[in-house]
Amino acid sequence: MASDDLIAKLKAALGDAGVLTGKDAEEKAQGGWSKLGVPAAVLRPASTEEVSKALKLCHAAGEGVVPWGGKTGLVEGGEAEGHIALSLERMNKIEEIDTLGGTMSVQAGCVLQAVCEAAEAKGLLFPLDLGARGSATIGGNISTNAGGNRVIRYGMTRDLVLGLEVVLADGTVMSSMNKLIKNNAGYDLKQMFIGSEGTLGVVTRAVLRVRPKPVSQDTGFVAVESFDQLPKFLRHMERALGGTLSAFEVMWEDFYKLVTMEPAKGKPIVPHGHPYYVLVESMGGDQEADSARFEAAMMEALEAGEISDAVIAKSQAERDAMWALRDDVGQVVHTYPMFTFDVSLKIADMESYIADVKKGLAAKWPDSSLMVFGHLGDGNLHVIPGRFPDAGPETRHGVEAVVYGRLRDRQGSVSAEHGIGLEKRPYLDWSRSAEEVALMRMLKRTLDPKNILNPGKVLEPLPQAKAAE
Amino acid sequence: MASDDLIAKLKAALGDAGVLTGKDAEEKAQGGWSKLGVPAAVLRPASTEEVSKALKLCHAAGEGVVPWGGKTGLVEGGEAEGHIALSLERMNKIEEIDTLGGTMSVQAGCVLQAVCEAAEAKGLLFPLDLGARGSATIGGNISTNAGGNRVIRYGMTRDLVLGLEVVLADGTVMSSMNKLIKNNAGYDLKQMFIGSEGTLGVVTRAVLRVRPKPVSQDTGFVAVESFDQLPKFLRHMERALGGTLSAFEVMWEDFYKLVTMEPAKGKPIVPHGHPYYVLVESMGGDQEADSARFEAAMMEALEAGEISDAVIAKSQAERDAMWALRDDVGQVVHTYPMFTFDVSLKIADMESYIADVKKGLAAKWPDSSLMVFGHLGDGNLHVIPGRFPDAGPETRHGVEAVVYGRLRDRQGSVSAEHGIGLEKRPYLDWSRSAEEVALMRMLKRTLDPKNILNPGKVLEPLPQAKAAE
Repeated sequence: MASDDLIAKLKAALGDAGVLTGKDAEEKAQGGWSKLGVPAAVLRPASTEEVSKALKLCHAAGEGVVPWGGKTGLVEGGEAEGHIALSLERMNKIEEIDTLGGTMSVQAGCVLQAVCEAAEAKGLLFPLDLGARGSATIGGNISTNAGGNRVIRYGMTRDLVLGLEVVLADGTVMSSMNKLIKNNAGYDLKQMFIGSEGTLGVVTRAVLRVRPKPVSQDTGFVAVESFDQLPKFLRHMERALGGTLSAFEVMWEDFYKLVTMEPAKGKPIVPHGHPYYVLVESMGGDQEADSARFEAAMMEALEAGEISDAVIAKSQAERDAMWALRDDVGQVVHTYPMFTFDVSLKIADMESYIADVKKGLAAKWPDSSLMVFGHLGDGNLHVIPGRFPDAGPETRHGVEAVVYGRLRDRQGSVSAEHGIGLEKRPYLDWSRSAEEVALMRMLKRTLDPKNILNPGKVLEPLPQAKAAE
Repeated sequence: MASDDLIAKLKAALGDAGVLTGKDAEEKAQGGWSKLGVPAAVLRPASTEEVSKALKLCHAAGEGVVPWGGKTGLVEGGEAEGHIALSLERMNKIEEIDTLGGTMSVQAGCVLQAVCEAAEAKGLLFPLDLGARGSATIGGNISTNAGGNRVIRYGMTRDLVLGLEVVLADGTVMSSMNKLIKNNAGYDLKQMFIGSEGTLGVVTRAVLRVRPKPVSQDTGFVAVESFDQLPKFLRHMERALGGTLSAFEVMWEDFYKLVTMEPAKGKPIVPHGHPYYVLVESMGGDQEADSARFEAAMMEALEAGEISDAVIAKSQAERDAMWALRDDVGQVVHTYPMFTFDVSLKIADMESYIADVKKGLAAKWPDSSLMVFGHLGDGNLHVIPGRFPDAGPETRHGVEAVVYGRLRDRQGSVSAEHGIGLEKRPYLDWSRSAEEVALMRMLKRTLDPKNILNPGKVLEPLPQAKAAE
């Protein structure tokens, strides 16, 4: 627990408005999308310099610091019980948009949606798009290497970042605000911090890569009769659209029913009765020609039997209705008690994987349900088993044993895009070899020898450290 | 210098065919594109296990090991004088191509062209393309994060690698042969090794991301009257082609003349007399429709005054003739003594940069020439000053002072795609801050505490280490 002395020093460095304690700190910890705990204090630095000062003080005191972005993480990566939370919320400036150069310099606390809208106002596209867009911050997106709906076209957050400013555990400011697409002058240090969930450094600023805003958008919704047609349809659309395919979102039948039947507000776009549904989207440079090509590609897929039914959005409202189904993940609450998983595996393994998970769950919980949807082109499925007798730890572990066990057999990943945080930590070595985990530990020790940065996240404390706790 | 004892142990581990010494080693060091020196021995392991054994032995002996791929590096990254060179040439198998999953598993010694051809034979594209394609190996491409002609569309090598197997300094095999596009299970370790030029580990195998082979290809060659039209034309083509722009190669007038006049074999495609020429290419999904769009986009650019003349290739032979000009870099030999540079900077700074470099060189060497061409969309220029009185170190340093000095003023990078090696090492801190270099050193010390992996490359030995030499 942070000492009064440390809190006083932090207040001197950040000002009273920069340090919340007691009830104020507790309040700030409300509304997280996963467990945040009650922090001893919440810091709200207004500049990189203040982040540096704060870390220097916490480092000297050996005090754990948990970085907070929009608090929309799903794996308890922001859990700060008894630690000091470091919120970047006041560092939310968009510093520069270079239209010609195709870059955007932002502070870490910018909300993703604000970043996207600022780009759009200049005729540009920042392609990262995900359900939490209205709250998630770009700093959080970077430190978790967020994925989302357009990875198939533009890559994950890692691929959208050109430069980074990071404050290291001891307060050193490592500014690497590179604006160049190509820069092979030494090691690409930013890569270490992207996706390390705040355990190696605190992201304070970034240079993002932006692109000309696409002129056209074409969206379709199709039904598919068997799993093996899905990758065929995917590869066909990739080829036929020649690089403009920007989303390929698959919904398994049960999920589709859940979001198109009462009490959900959504209506079926193609009729029920098919095992798979796909939302497919393309973004290009010429609306008329692109629409013609999109339609032609869909017709070819119909003729080839890859898809059995198809609707193409004829208006923005129709497009929105399609995305609304995909985004209405909240309906899974009706299968409570349920658990959400975010896994990745080879497309070729998906069908048997889901069948095995279903079988494994049914054997123990005959009434359980299984909602599945995901970014098929990225190998990423969201798997949500539900309708369990309870949500207790024993049930959870039983469910994890099935979901992760079947995944381990297929060399899948226990985290496609959500990260490890606290929640998936026990399963990290189901997806990573002993050598990989050892190297992660070595990096952590090197960059944060006092283990003050988001302590205990991603990597299990070593037995020695555990004993000391 | 490697002891007889170490050589004997290496022979026992790798077999006689796996260890070349004396004349044989000297011969193997011939034909490098930059200085390789004379190694004490050249190892030719046939498997990851043998690489591991070799490193374990060299690590125990504290002996420097210099990894060799196709020896086409341009910055003395393979210089192995007195050290042990480790050639991956026998590890050249393509292990698996997964058409459905879009991955390809290869050994590090595979020649890039062989990788591309194997993909093509399955209807796939591995997009990395560069002049050294016939000799460069994929392991070398990965360890230098190679760029090339299609970065604007597909990214650098880093963006094309999903998984990696690396042998660490002490012989530990770190296998991270991930096949998944999304995998946020812990730190993305492969990123550390990509682009670190063999100083942190030896790449032995990789999983590459491949894509459906584009159906269409459209290539044009245009003249541009002023620098400020170049980025306008670039952004126009990006937008109009909606994601299919795959090359945007600019040639400055002097370079264009050099490759289109005797003694060069190339003929002008558009007439001489313009300050800039651009080779522009698009790869898409429908030849007829894409060609129509490409032509329309070029017409719009003509009408907008972004370009003043244009030729569109009507056959593969015409396309080849366009690329042949761009690829005929060898003509710079006629400006000998010359020096080649590979820099990146913001597009907005390029015009004044080149003007300043020209002025700076002319002030000291009135008869000097300056050949410039490059991947404008990536901010990457190849700058080749020539016709100096001599190629001695004093002249070189004087030229570097001008080329890098003007770059430093503009926060450019001394290496866009070639890496640092030995040659650019003195200038690393002209493009990187003290904090960045310190962090690179920290990584190097952590991963290679005995400094045996490609010793002295990228990072200047510290004063202490220097004294010990």
